[in-house]
Amino acid sequence: MEKINVGILGCGIVGTGVAKLLMEKEKLLESRIGTVINLKNIADIDTEKDRGIKFKKGVMISDAFKIISDPDIDIIVELIGGNKIAKDLTIQALENGKHVVTANKALLASFGNELVKTARQNQVDLAFEASCGGCMPVVKTLRESLVGNCIKSITGIFNGTCNYILTKMSNEKCPFHDALQQAQEKGFAEADPTLDIEGFDSAHKLAILTSLAYGMEINLDDIHVEGITRISPMDIEFAKEFGYTIKLLAISKNNSDNIEAHVHPAMIPFSNPLSHVNNSMNAVIIDGDATGQTMLYGYGAGMMPTASAVVSDIADIARNLIKGTKRRVPILGCPESNIRTIPIQPVKKIHTCYYFRFTAADQPGVLSKISGILGDFGISIKTVHQKGKRSNGYVPIVMITHMAKEEHALNALKGIASLETIMDDPIVIRIEE
Amino acid sequence: MEKINVGILGCGIVGTGVAKLLMEKEKLLESRIGTVINLKNIADIDTEKDRGIKFKKGVMISDAFKIISDPDIDIIVELIGGNKIAKDLTIQALENGKHVVTANKALLASFGNELVKTARQNQVDLAFEASCGGCMPVVKTLRESLVGNCIKSITGIFNGTCNYILTKMSNEKCPFHDALQQAQEKGFAEADPTLDIEGFDSAHKLAILTSLAYGMEINLDDIHVEGITRISPMDIEFAKEFGYTIKLLAISKNNSDNIEAHVHPAMIPFSNPLSHVNNSMNAVIIDGDATGQTMLYGYGAGMMPTASAVVSDIADIARNLIKGTKRRVPILGCPESNIRTIPIQPVKKIHTCYYFRFTAADQPGVLSKISGILGDFGISIKTVHQKGKRSNGYVPIVMITHMAKEEHALNALKGIASLETIMDDPIVIRIEE
Repeated sequence: MEKINVGILGCGIVGTGVAKLLMEKEKLLESRIGTVINLKNIADIDTEKDRGIKFKKGVMISDAFKIISDPDIDIIVELIGGNKIAKDLTIQALENGKHVVTANKALLASFGNELVKTARQNQVDLAFEASCGGCMPVVKTLRESLVGNCIKSITGIFNGTCNYILTKMSNEKCPFHDALQQAQEKGFAEADPTLDIEGFDSAHKLAILTSLAYGMEINLDDIHVEGITRISPMDIEFAKEFGYTIKLLAISKNNSDNIEAHVHPAMIPFSNPLSHVNNSMNAVIIDGDATGQTMLYGYGAGMMPTASAVVSDIADIARNLIKGTKRRVPILGCPESNIRTIPIQPVKKIHTCYYFRFTAADQPGVLSKISGILGDFGISIKTVHQKGKRSNGYVPIVMITHMAKEEHALNALKGIASLETIMDDPIVIRIEE
Repeated sequence: MEKINVGILGCGIVGTGVAKLLMEKEKLLESRIGTVINLKNIADIDTEKDRGIKFKKGVMISDAFKIISDPDIDIIVELIGGNKIAKDLTIQALENGKHVVTANKALLASFGNELVKTARQNQVDLAFEASCGGCMPVVKTLRESLVGNCIKSITGIFNGTCNYILTKMSNEKCPFHDALQQAQEKGFAEADPTLDIEGFDSAHKLAILTSLAYGMEINLDDIHVEGITRISPMDIEFAKEFGYTIKLLAISKNNSDNIEAHVHPAMIPFSNPLSHVNNSMNAVIIDGDATGQTMLYGYGAGMMPTASAVVSDIADIARNLIKGTKRRVPILGCPESNIRTIPIQPVKKIHTCYYFRFTAADQPGVLSKISGILGDFGISIKTVHQKGKRSNGYVPIVMITHMAKEEHALNALKGIASLETIMDDPIVIRIEE
């Protein structure tokens, strides 16, 4: 093949990065792939903006529909983002017989099953390495490198904004809102950070990876999601004393007959390699029954790391096209006919260890009442400390429990919160040992 | 395709693991790949030994040559190890038109260029994910996921035995030989541990990965190799005080017109994620110009982790065969016609920072003489401490230098070692910042 034509939809940060890579690395890519990967067109509403990149005349256009219907273009790269126009364009591109590469986790998490079906009907590829964990090759690792493994669990730090904020809070003992503001000033957090700090971005990625890991349909709706806004420097300090770091984790576990999938802040021991993943870095531990725990670590976002992942997908499809083939690796890791619907267990059914912090009246008998209620629900305490300074006659009581069922923990906490000697809602953080 | 027949050469630890995976995961693999991967034969001299696995009648045979000439077998898996019979069988298998999967780093490091050539001449694949870093998908990541990157450097902990010993020495402050003995008792080190502790095993892996990273021929001979036998608990303790961990690192760097490639113990700061890679775990940081630093971490050896990597190669080739193709990704990352011969720089030409420990007479003027000689060679000192206890009138002097050229450092050390006030050879450990 003389060359393979690529069309990019959206020239935002990642679109610019992909265009840069394709143009600046044209020779390198040709030397590795054996064919020129040619950026034929890139579409954006704003064709005039200076993006620090000089396109040849006619490459930048405003009409995305022209690109997806161009018979000369083999691969469409969707980098618009969001669920609206991006969805329409992606589906039309697939229906036009184009292979599609996307970094759009929100789109995949919500409409991935429909897109996979459309790709199958039109016998084209849909690739999305950049949607989960930036440049970390997590999709390729799950679909190809771990093909001989039953995946037991995935535990990931998939949101750089949250990790930056939690690292900042931990290092500088500053409250959440100060850390968020610094993250915004440094460009690590969006003006509206809701998607990140409330855990939804991590949930999008977890929905995709859970599907790949266990051969099941993408299911975003049943993933339990909590963000990091309730984490305080006090809890981070207590965690350290117990030997833990607090991270926003996306977790899925294979319980054979069902799957767990939940996103929330969690305490992990210093011995867990994820506890050393700081600032805006991402990492994921995949536990395979043959490999044991294996970890990928890298930049989970940013112009060039994300562009690198997009280009790896383009190269994968190009290497197929050169060999006259396509759809070599099934989109979700196994042929669509083998994709199952496996229920995601409600979070109240999971078993885990807990960190609780109560604000309790500094008077005799309080601890006995708390531990009595926990005992009534079968929850046994591993460690308890009355820590820190008395304030207005109240002191923090922190404890670590042994394994307990989530719904028992929640019911016990309801009982404890209703005690007259307890002020404020208890703080609850799950522990991943 | 109804099924794809596989023949394994060698039923040692990894061979047994691969057979187990293929047999126990037959349904899982079929559900993911879309075709049965059938273990037709496995050859070993000892066909009677109980390996905890029950082969169907006729599967285990003693004649490896029968397997490589069986027209029904598509993929040969070479797990004999070493450079002799394994080489002959691999070359004959390739010449017979078989695709070959191997975990044999020694063979690839020494004869890889010849094998690649033979594979090209016979238009078959040669896959070796398991040869470098066990289950870490480092070959796939370099050849596929980072295809859009100029690789700037590779820094890896590739030998579990050495990492186990260094971790033990660090945690228990025990001398090298005690740690080695414990490693042998626990099965982490061979009866003859030379290949591991002298750094050769790491060099084999580095030779392969350096070729993949920079598109150059495999060149084992020019890699500088030092082992860990001279590391003492004292240096590990001093390193900690300076904020460093000592690891056996395999390092290659891209200096545009030449390549660095060296294996030796090195100090790395606690902020480097490799410093937290302990016990027998392996990890590698790949620095790409688009991705920045990305890390893979996992079990670098062992029956099932290595078998998992072998099976991923089998699946890759099987997915090609199903699609009627082969040689989809070039063996060394770019087509053989684009492979260059790039010189590996002699280690005396590299620039790095150093840790020096001198055993010096506890008298005035010694430090001045040492620093004078270093100054004469243009080596500037960052930190110096006279540390630890006096013994027979001698004290250890430890120092950290700024960047210096290796040959200047060696010449300076020669001068310092010849001082009357200096006992023993100085200890030199490179620092990777």
